[in-house]
Amino acid sequence: MSNFTHFNEEGRAKMVDVSAKPDTVRTAIAHSSIVVNPVVYDQIRHNQNKKGDVLAVAQVAGIMAAKKTWEIIPMCHPIPLKGIDISFEWDVKDETYELLISVSVKTKGSTGVEMEALTAASVTALTIYDMCKAVDKGMKIGQTYLIEKTGGVSSPDYRREG
Amino acid sequence: MSNFTHFNEEGRAKMVDVSAKPDTVRTAIAHSSIVVNPVVYDQIRHNQNKKGDVLAVAQVAGIMAAKKTWEIIPMCHPIPLKGIDISFEWDVKDETYELLISVSVKTKGSTGVEMEALTAASVTALTIYDMCKAVDKGMKIGQTYLIEKTGGVSSPDYRREG
Amino acid sequence: MSNFTHFNEEGRAKMVDVSAKPDTVRTAIAHSSIVVNPVVYDQIRHNQNKKGDVLAVAQVAGIMAAKKTWEIIPMCHPIPLKGIDISFEWDVKDETYELLISVSVKTKGSTGVEMEALTAASVTALTIYDMCKAVDKGMKIGQTYLIEKTGGVSSPDYRREG
Amino acid sequence: MSNFTHFNEEGRAKMVDVSAKPDTVRTAIAHSSIVVNPVVYDQIRHNQNKKGDVLAVAQVAGIMAAKKTWEIIPMCHPIPLKGIDISFEWDVKDETYELLISVSVKTKGSTGVEMEALTAASVTALTIYDMCKAVDKGMKIGQTYLIEKTGGVSSPDYRREG
Amino acid sequence: MSNFTHFNEEGRAKMVDVSAKPDTVRTAIAHSSIVVNPVVYDQIRHNQNKKGDVLAVAQVAGIMAAKKTWEIIPMCHPIPLKGIDISFEWDVKDETYELLISVSVKTKGSTGVEMEALTAASVTALTIYDMCKAVDKGMKIGQTYLIEKTGGVSSPDYRREG
Amino acid sequence: MSNFTHFNEEGRAKMVDVSAKPDTVRTAIAHSSIVVNPVVYDQIRHNQNKKGDVLAVAQVAGIMAAKKTWEIIPMCHPIPLKGIDISFEWDVKDETYELLISVSVKTKGSTGVEMEALTAASVTALTIYDMCKAVDKGMKIGQTYLIEKTGGVSSPDYRREG
Repeated sequence: MSNFTHFNEEGRAKMVDVSAKPDTVRTAIAHSSIVVNPVVYDQIRHNQNKKGDVLAVAQVAGIMAAKKTWEIIPMCHPIPLKGIDISFEWDVKDETYELLISVSVKTKGSTGVEMEALTAASVTALTIYDMCKAVDKGMKIGQTYLIEKTGGVSSPDYRREG
Repeated sequence: MSNFTHFNEEGRAKMVDVSAKPDTVRTAIAHSSIVVNPVVYDQIRHNQNKKGDVLAVAQVAGIMAAKKTWEIIPMCHPIPLKGIDISFEWDVKDETYELLISVSVKTKGSTGVEMEALTAASVTALTIYDMCKAVDKGMKIGQTYLIEKTGGVSSPDYRREG
Repeated sequence: MSNFTHFNEEGRAKMVDVSAKPDTVRTAIAHSSIVVNPVVYDQIRHNQNKKGDVLAVAQVAGIMAAKKTWEIIPMCHPIPLKGIDISFEWDVKDETYELLISVSVKTKGSTGVEMEALTAASVTALTIYDMCKAVDKGMKIGQTYLIEKTGGVSSPDYRREG
Repeated sequence: MSNFTHFNEEGRAKMVDVSAKPDTVRTAIAHSSIVVNPVVYDQIRHNQNKKGDVLAVAQVAGIMAAKKTWEIIPMCHPIPLKGIDISFEWDVKDETYELLISVSVKTKGSTGVEMEALTAASVTALTIYDMCKAVDKGMKIGQTYLIEKTGGVSSPDYRREG
Repeated sequence: MSNFTHFNEEGRAKMVDVSAKPDTVRTAIAHSSIVVNPVVYDQIRHNQNKKGDVLAVAQVAGIMAAKKTWEIIPMCHPIPLKGIDISFEWDVKDETYELLISVSVKTKGSTGVEMEALTAASVTALTIYDMCKAVDKGMKIGQTYLIEKTGGVSSPDYRREG
Repeated sequence: MSNFTHFNEEGRAKMVDVSAKPDTVRTAIAHSSIVVNPVVYDQIRHNQNKKGDVLAVAQVAGIMAAKKTWEIIPMCHPIPLKGIDISFEWDVKDETYELLISVSVKTKGSTGVEMEALTAASVTALTIYDMCKAVDKGMKIGQTYLIEKTGGVSSPDYRREG
């Protein structure tokens, strides 16, 4: 006699069904940062790192990671990204050198692209870390979070308040 | 003088042209299984495998593999999967412990998703094998096949008969 | 006041530490199969499938999958494979056409290669399925299992009995 | 006091925004080639290379590379390829043995597919090189270029002149 | 007449040569975290997230990302990881719910594994974000940094102070 | 009665066994090039391409492709690359603008790295093509070949003659 045991569905992972959602233009902007020491700050600004142009490499890494987000984050849906832009800004105060990273992602698809923007921001910061770790062993990647999200059908646009 | 030799097309691989097929909602359900010994059966049920929660890891592996099917199976077209769900059921009889694996995949695209469901089912079974192979060297992955397929334009829906 | 909650380790996934294991030559042989209808049997034998030479494509797919096993199976260690060989054999009896798949894998590394052999066997079968599914909707991938494993340091060689 | 330094945008990499472009059927044909010695020429024609059927393996490699172009070329947009076909032709003259490679790619998407065709052509040639390098150490991959491109919305169709 | 222009090497990216470094056992521990709202806190603790067991999925994602670090971070050397372990701890105070993430990585190779530990920590946090973003739109991934690094030949062991 | 049909081995692909080969330091240098029009020549030299710094992006792409060669070329063995360096040089004569690409790869492993150097050279050229194709539709990637190879155990060092 056969004895079947059905599992309780609770807690088991699934990639939720989004087949009913229409394709709309969607954007997301994410933020990350990295705090470095003055030597790294100078190297990056004067392009003297011996592994190469730190920000150029980091930007390529971030763009490539955005496209691969669905391979890296298990429950993310594959989305055909239409545009990716990564920009940098230095925030220097009180002997603290922080490089701010801003990633903007655009698609025309059925899910939001906040994970793509966040993943690109993280990988951009990680790549800067990798390029500079021989010079500064104490770097910290700063907070990583969503700044803005538009184009969702079921949810209103999101903008982080002040 | 130049001497051109044209090849006979026969037998050369190609990814067949599906650009004329419209995007429709399509589903597929595939089945696989794995036969384990009583020790593995107990470990899985009581979550005592030293590598981790066997079924949770296998489910993540299966979902990720479904999304990468077009990278693994050479002539498969890339398809934007919209939903993936993997469930388990034990079939215990006559001292045989068989874990049944069922994978359901959904897309809105121009080709069927049976390969995605079958690949996910196989990888789910392989992952269970990997997690448990230190305890049971005689496991066998059972038959892997399509249960159901819907949404094709040129072909009728398919359901495996009892 | 801060309130820390430590997790019970039980059930959480890890890739177990094998850094103490020496690199030795290791081999594994895995088996899979696929049952097809007579039309597919003839197409494969006479190389008349319109997607290409079925077994040639399947062999390439299996070899490439073996190398990527650590990307597909979550807790597998990355291993530098040194050799992969895939062979086929038809078993025809009583109107049943079964293509037997045998995969042999070799490495010089710190873990066994049974998962690499099994993954390659599964992907080889899945690729045959994909190449032939337009002609036969009722194919079944047969049992997939380990035939032989040698070279482990802590465990004796394994050979499946009759 | 905080001191922000804005970067000049010039020279920083981005994946340009194509979200406003409609999906249309697009095709591209690319050309590459490889010059080999007479021993390789004979091996390929009589299928006697010890690593396998050279052209069959190269064709699978080219098709798989076309699908992965957006992972290999950093600023390429991910595109759902709909069809890929690779053909070969020998050009033998004056003791020179040149294998001509032609790759045709089709999509229904918002960008052209010339990079997919060119990447597939290069990888096809590289794979032939790999299969034959034990026999001929002096092979050269020939020029690689676009032959034809159709379906762009903003740009006219392209055909290389004589 | 031909006119060659040599480039100044400065600023061009390279993967630096480590072929002279011996293989030694190396470890790294990295830290990240994510701040969530009370609803997410409860969902995770009672395993009630509708996408699945949040921490189980995140752990698998982190382990798989560690192995792929060299594919994600451009100038990282490929390293055969020997062990990966990810653990969690809640820090709850003053209405703030922060999940602390600790990743430990081990290899026997010629470079350190801090990038592997940091990448795994980031991806673990990103995956938690993805699983919970439907419930909490204001999550922030906390600082990500190296805690400890051992086994380097040319550089002393590193431990972050206080 | 069962009827087994053994296949002739001839022509079937395999990844040849290199487990008996010792790990030695090995290097390879490969060459490729791309011919562009004067507008592209000026854009690259003055870093005015709107997609970004062409050579910086191409260098990152080439380095990442070298590491993934075993995933792209089916019968290539996975090798842990130890160093990669890509350099450029302009050859301008008679209104022809040709960018020369030189890739140097180093490993400590059991097979040569000529495929890694050649693949990196091709992908570097393809990336330049992609960055500049909006401006010049007639670019051609030049010949791609091996310049030098050292460190093989069974085969003597190779250097291409003038």
